[in-house]
Amino acid sequence: MPLANPNERHPTSPPQTAPPARFLELVADKLVATEVIFRQHLASDVPFIEEAGKYLAQGGGKRVRPALLLLAAQLLGHDGEEEVTYAAVVELIHTATLIHDDIIDYAPLRRGRPTVSQLWDNHRTVLLGDWAYTTSMNMALSHGRVEVIRRLCTATARMTEGELLVLDRLGVPDLSVEEYFEIIGRKTADLFSAACSIPSLIPTERPEAGAVLARYGKALGICFQLVDDLLDFTARESDLGKPVLSDLKEGKLTLPVLLLMPRLTAKARQRVERVLEDRSFDRVDPQEILDLVNTEGTLQEVEQIAGDYAQQARQQLEFFPPSTTREALEYAPEYLLSRRR
Amino acid sequence: MPLANPNERHPTSPPQTAPPARFLELVADKLVATEVIFRQHLASDVPFIEEAGKYLAQGGGKRVRPALLLLAAQLLGHDGEEEVTYAAVVELIHTATLIHDDIIDYAPLRRGRPTVSQLWDNHRTVLLGDWAYTTSMNMALSHGRVEVIRRLCTATARMTEGELLVLDRLGVPDLSVEEYFEIIGRKTADLFSAACSIPSLIPTERPEAGAVLARYGKALGICFQLVDDLLDFTARESDLGKPVLSDLKEGKLTLPVLLLMPRLTAKARQRVERVLEDRSFDRVDPQEILDLVNTEGTLQEVEQIAGDYAQQARQQLEFFPPSTTREALEYAPEYLLSRRR
Repeated sequence: MPLANPNERHPTSPPQTAPPARFLELVADKLVATEVIFRQHLASDVPFIEEAGKYLAQGGGKRVRPALLLLAAQLLGHDGEEEVTYAAVVELIHTATLIHDDIIDYAPLRRGRPTVSQLWDNHRTVLLGDWAYTTSMNMALSHGRVEVIRRLCTATARMTEGELLVLDRLGVPDLSVEEYFEIIGRKTADLFSAACSIPSLIPTERPEAGAVLARYGKALGICFQLVDDLLDFTARESDLGKPVLSDLKEGKLTLPVLLLMPRLTAKARQRVERVLEDRSFDRVDPQEILDLVNTEGTLQEVEQIAGDYAQQARQQLEFFPPSTTREALEYAPEYLLSRRR
Repeated sequence: MPLANPNERHPTSPPQTAPPARFLELVADKLVATEVIFRQHLASDVPFIEEAGKYLAQGGGKRVRPALLLLAAQLLGHDGEEEVTYAAVVELIHTATLIHDDIIDYAPLRRGRPTVSQLWDNHRTVLLGDWAYTTSMNMALSHGRVEVIRRLCTATARMTEGELLVLDRLGVPDLSVEEYFEIIGRKTADLFSAACSIPSLIPTERPEAGAVLARYGKALGICFQLVDDLLDFTARESDLGKPVLSDLKEGKLTLPVLLLMPRLTAKARQRVERVLEDRSFDRVDPQEILDLVNTEGTLQEVEQIAGDYAQQARQQLEFFPPSTTREALEYAPEYLLSRRR
């Protein structure tokens, strides 16, 4: 189920002539430089870190957070090494969370390759993640700005809190929509927000742009997570690399089901609750849930809400004079969505 | 097996009239303040963090690192809130490593109480440790000193590297003495060293004292770890809360065995290697190993080396004019050793 063309709904959307790939073009050189720094800092005199670091560096990944940070820096007129360092830092923080996520999920694969915890063990994986977090903070210090570390630590703490809130509310059928947004705000959007606003901490003539860029990143991050949650209902298993409806099976209520619940009959609601209780589809067919969601149209509603957040992100950018960089940032939602389909 | 009285070997040791408890007396008020800050920062709006935080704060612990930091601050003439913050920070970093250690070891008990990973699960335990690390960095930022964070990040990264080196060399019978000291330096002594030297980063008339205090902390940390490793041979199981010779059983060679190996016949060496291979005492009786160690007298040699490091730590303090605070720091090795017997 592709997302509806946001232009149809939002008259201020950017013209469709510029392809989403444009998002990366303007910072292509800096992304290459980021990659070099990222790999340099994964080097170590500890054999395991050296080995695992190479494996992680070769793993690819979309480098969305570095790209956003570099574009935000460009928008503020920065053209130096400092923003490249920070771009590598946010990617390393993101990598650290993925390393620790793999322990948590006992996930055998990520991006089609065995995870660190599968290749080595939980013991090494915990320590590698700790090392990556600490190294990222150390890298971020290299330009001596306390405020940068503060923002990164706050975002990282909130990310961890978001993950813990997910666990606290696992299997709880009466999760509220407000709680859901609180959770995805912390878990995903705060690091996006930090990535976008950090360039404003490098001396600039427009320091007030920091709050604008933070709001841009936050709205973009929420949009990103909403679409990610939608994919659990709409993607084919082969595309996603995990079973469809796996969130529900793990006890996680996401927005499509949250919006659905109050509209269901007591009997239908019990069907959903049964999956949450069992943490399996042993007693309920996944198609049953998909039918409920499709009948009530909550997937389209969530798409609409994701589009609203994309739009909210774009509106923030009106603070800046028109430029190719601003245009690239306007395309970020589409770029992110195109990469996740 | 109590340690030999270091006075007998080291003529510059402090007089025995002052009891080791003196170590804590001079900073007793500040330790209480540290405890308050420590508990304040373990509070959170996330229910699990709040719950686990209370459990951790009540867990006690020797608060050795905060005491060292506060005494070093006093030695430099500081008497403010800043060093109290840093004292809470080093304790929180130490706590974070313990939380993640518990995942690693699947340890059921720590300090006689169930561990976090036993009470909750690996998933929450990883995240709680991450949260504690990040929160400690955030706390350390509150006085805006980049150099403090830099030192803490470096010590934390080296601690993680030390743990990973232990794993890399697990079960390897030809570990060198140099490698052993490199490992315990990173794993244990670098955080001691950071704790002792951080007060020199608060503006002081004697900034050159920083390097002296760093050396003091490093030597003290090595002494501490040597004695910890000795206890695996000398303590009774009931005191230690784990089986005697558990290091060897886990494949870890510590100094008493490292010194022993080259002196053994090929046949005797095979007995030790068999334990490393099997990771059990199924084919070799622990008493056999204890007999070898006792015959060769390597426990006494390690005691002597630990005493030398204690002495090396004390000698650093001669940089400072005599004072009750200096005296308390001179007693630190004895205090640490008395608490571990």
